[in-house]
Amino acid sequence: MEGKEQDVSLGANKFPERQPIGTAAQSQDDGKDYQEPPPAPLFEPSELTSWSFYRAGIAEFVATFLFLYITILTVMGVSRADANSKCKTVGIQGIAWAFGGMIFALVYCTAGISGGHINPAVTFGLFLARKLSLTRALFYMVMQCLGAICGAGVVKGFEGKKLYGTLGGGVNFVHDGYTKGDGLGAEIVGTFILVYTVFSATDAKRSARDSHVPILAPLPIGFAVFLVHLATIPITGTGINPARSLGAAIIFNKHEGWHEHWIFWVGPFIGAALAALYHVVVIRAIPFKSK
Amino acid sequence: MEGKEQDVSLGANKFPERQPIGTAAQSQDDGKDYQEPPPAPLFEPSELTSWSFYRAGIAEFVATFLFLYITILTVMGVSRADANSKCKTVGIQGIAWAFGGMIFALVYCTAGISGGHINPAVTFGLFLARKLSLTRALFYMVMQCLGAICGAGVVKGFEGKKLYGTLGGGVNFVHDGYTKGDGLGAEIVGTFILVYTVFSATDAKRSARDSHVPILAPLPIGFAVFLVHLATIPITGTGINPARSLGAAIIFNKHEGWHEHWIFWVGPFIGAALAALYHVVVIRAIPFKSK
Amino acid sequence: MEGKEQDVSLGANKFPERQPIGTAAQSQDDGKDYQEPPPAPLFEPSELTSWSFYRAGIAEFVATFLFLYITILTVMGVSRADANSKCKTVGIQGIAWAFGGMIFALVYCTAGISGGHINPAVTFGLFLARKLSLTRALFYMVMQCLGAICGAGVVKGFEGKKLYGTLGGGVNFVHDGYTKGDGLGAEIVGTFILVYTVFSATDAKRSARDSHVPILAPLPIGFAVFLVHLATIPITGTGINPARSLGAAIIFNKHEGWHEHWIFWVGPFIGAALAALYHVVVIRAIPFKSK
Amino acid sequence: MEGKEQDVSLGANKFPERQPIGTAAQSQDDGKDYQEPPPAPLFEPSELTSWSFYRAGIAEFVATFLFLYITILTVMGVSRADANSKCKTVGIQGIAWAFGGMIFALVYCTAGISGGHINPAVTFGLFLARKLSLTRALFYMVMQCLGAICGAGVVKGFEGKKLYGTLGGGVNFVHDGYTKGDGLGAEIVGTFILVYTVFSATDAKRSARDSHVPILAPLPIGFAVFLVHLATIPITGTGINPARSLGAAIIFNKHEGWHEHWIFWVGPFIGAALAALYHVVVIRAIPFKSK
Repeated sequence: MEGKEQDVSLGANKFPERQPIGTAAQSQDDGKDYQEPPPAPLFEPSELTSWSFYRAGIAEFVATFLFLYITILTVMGVSRADANSKCKTVGIQGIAWAFGGMIFALVYCTAGISGGHINPAVTFGLFLARKLSLTRALFYMVMQCLGAICGAGVVKGFEGKKLYGTLGGGVNFVHDGYTKGDGLGAEIVGTFILVYTVFSATDAKRSARDSHVPILAPLPIGFAVFLVHLATIPITGTGINPARSLGAAIIFNKHEGWHEHWIFWVGPFIGAALAALYHVVVIRAIPFKSK
Repeated sequence: MEGKEQDVSLGANKFPERQPIGTAAQSQDDGKDYQEPPPAPLFEPSELTSWSFYRAGIAEFVATFLFLYITILTVMGVSRADANSKCKTVGIQGIAWAFGGMIFALVYCTAGISGGHINPAVTFGLFLARKLSLTRALFYMVMQCLGAICGAGVVKGFEGKKLYGTLGGGVNFVHDGYTKGDGLGAEIVGTFILVYTVFSATDAKRSARDSHVPILAPLPIGFAVFLVHLATIPITGTGINPARSLGAAIIFNKHEGWHEHWIFWVGPFIGAALAALYHVVVIRAIPFKSK
Repeated sequence: MEGKEQDVSLGANKFPERQPIGTAAQSQDDGKDYQEPPPAPLFEPSELTSWSFYRAGIAEFVATFLFLYITILTVMGVSRADANSKCKTVGIQGIAWAFGGMIFALVYCTAGISGGHINPAVTFGLFLARKLSLTRALFYMVMQCLGAICGAGVVKGFEGKKLYGTLGGGVNFVHDGYTKGDGLGAEIVGTFILVYTVFSATDAKRSARDSHVPILAPLPIGFAVFLVHLATIPITGTGINPARSLGAAIIFNKHEGWHEHWIFWVGPFIGAALAALYHVVVIRAIPFKSK
Repeated sequence: MEGKEQDVSLGANKFPERQPIGTAAQSQDDGKDYQEPPPAPLFEPSELTSWSFYRAGIAEFVATFLFLYITILTVMGVSRADANSKCKTVGIQGIAWAFGGMIFALVYCTAGISGGHINPAVTFGLFLARKLSLTRALFYMVMQCLGAICGAGVVKGFEGKKLYGTLGGGVNFVHDGYTKGDGLGAEIVGTFILVYTVFSATDAKRSARDSHVPILAPLPIGFAVFLVHLATIPITGTGINPARSLGAAIIFNKHEGWHEHWIFWVGPFIGAALAALYHVVVIRAIPFKSK
């Protein structure tokens, strides 16, 4: 292709075969104008000496702190109202907006600093797809959990120890009328939806084709969280984020919170792994062209 | 066209006559800078040997599966609450958000893979406008229906067979106080709104004028679904998607679900056909310039 | 400026002094890189022979038809529920979403065809700012009113004549506890917010600076409608759109609908005129540089 | 930099190291392609002779007027309904949408004129980061407060003096069951979230990397306001905007409104200062490279 240099300067017009919504599928020429980035190394020692690595951890801490603060406080506000006056609160739908909306705003704010995970399951899924190193993945997860604990702690401080215990502290557990299997399944499918959206929104091939895709990405990611909450709050209160479940459980610290806590780690991690598998094997078909 | 290379490099400045919102109509020079893509062939044998064709089908299956899973689960959550405590649920408005929001997120995720239909009526409308081949249209519809059945099936598994039957299973039917004609009319106009939005958002001429239009397209499409649900849930529960209606009916499998089931195929297909007609004949006036 | 031709090809980089949100005001050099478009002529005979003129009118008709259909149907759904079970409906907030969301979706769909007014007050405001000819303005208003009448008529057909009368038909009137002056004031300020947003979103100078602004424009416009409904449904049911008020009044056709109907023409037209004045005189300061 | 002309013409392709959402952190090469703008001077006498300075003040006045008008009117609508029929109103969630949605729409409309602050705490935070001069900051705050007083005044006129007093006038105070410390903390963290989002959305480095970021900025800023209201309406009614608190307090003018009024100035200013500190020191690390 002789005109290549010129092509580069064409910007958005570079890919005339760009896939319009509503028509046929992408053409077959995978890997022509697009280069799959190499997998992140498991350990990247140079990271550990860079300020941006620690800054990213701090950003994940602050974001998860704010996430738990707003969401658990919203849950408390709804729980405080007696059973027959939920209409005087923002209601269950308001809780779903708090979770989804915070993820939208926080992913928007931290995407350029840490990648905007705010969720160990997202970090795990992206690690499986080798988008970040093991060191970084573990560091992020630790910072997310610490942030979540602090966020829930501040809410407990506001509500008062006694009332916080009475109101349930926003912990995740399998609700009456559902089995543990239902709860685990709900967490798996819910996290699949979230991590599948993250992969779709941040797909390197798609970004190459259209540089504006990443700009809008926080919106569908936030909506995915909102939608899973609409559907599964009646089942488990909706975890799909082990840091959120852990933070609430540690601060609540009663049997109801710890009893089925494993579900909110195992479920999200399975869901994230399935989403990574679906994206890498089915959508990108990477294993079949690695020669 | 001699000046082509230079034209192309101007990027977004190419169309100085671009139509600003709020002012006069498009200029008459249709077809000058813009080339209507040729109609898709009815049968395209080469498609059948490409991985992207099957990948697109899988993506439609997964998306419709997730669509039914989230939406029917949300409907179940609202139905479980007794009649006087709907305030303790996400409410009817939450159901409308679940349907519209899922379409937004899923169109965003699958647009680059399959075109993001997730609805046989959308596939039918785009097929009528010859945006995809008959083979592909039929394949998509089959995969959408299979995905919908599986999605509703998982919800039944979560809720338990007995309770699922009691709660109505999220099936579409014409509600008390409305005639079959009302229900059919509501499905026709509702699907018209959805497919009209799809055509407007994915219009090839518009995309040519402004390459950023497709990026935002999933948002108005999702909103269209949300809005039709706000208006017609009291009439039919809102179908406007034959796969959604079929999946719920098969898994529910009672007289109420099958009784008026034809309305949720005939209505959406008529609505989609009218939208295709409106777009092709009135908006694009294609028949009048085919010389 | 010698490098001007080169400048043009730079696309989005053309205006390095672009105003970032959150910092200081625009620089003074109005009119440097930006050319205020000439005012539209009062009569433009050539328009009347162009298909795009009639197509724009049809698009306004269809859009206002769909607008009334969805919104009045949503109002009916809420009104059908008895007073104590509003929670079983989408609620007043759902009505506000129906109005605002439809404007978002319809402006998005029709912006490229007719400018996306769907409201005689918007047409009036843009006419005052000389963005379209008098001929076109009058043609749009007639088509909007016809579309609104048909949309409300279809809803009446669905609900049944008797029930439609009982439920109030979605007409605008000044509610108990408010004076006519309150109602008129609410319509004036409400329409000011809408038309001010339309002017801000479609500002020619802003579009020149950043070609992506028009893409997002339908979203704040739709939100403006949503927000005014949140605030003023308790006062007048919220008109801010004479076609919407007229359509509902004609189909309802009772004293309550006609009694204070003038408020829903005078209020929106005053509000639109004030918004046009504010934009042209204060924001653009056009009178002070017309030499 | 010799290659500059060529670089510039590459548009969006200029920064191949652009940070995709969901992957690793920004590279270390701060300040390479990006130049931190110089801090605004404390006093800029030339501003005072420019029309754009006064126009910006008028825009802040009008925006804060409309903000208070819509939001306090929405609060009044909900308060008018007796305690058991909140379902017949837009509810507490509707109030949260009114506050957040207005900020979205108004930031979108005024960003190009005044920077779109509409909030003395935002002005204060941006002043601390030296994004605008002291003169401008003080001028904005005065105009915001005047606008807020007028907006609340119009609402009082609509509702009637007596009823306005009964309904509480939308003033902020610490609600029963919370201490002053809780209220102050809620204001600090809430304002931190808002101003942190403002800084993230308008970050000069980020805008340099991707010229489309500012376009979407009003949406997360509006969502931040919405989310803080979801969480803290039960605690203080949510201030996070001293002009909003002052306007409501002056027009209500009773003990309940003035009693803890200091909290709604001290809290937001501390929160804004912390957000400015976090952004400048942690995220941008400006102090550590000022050599």
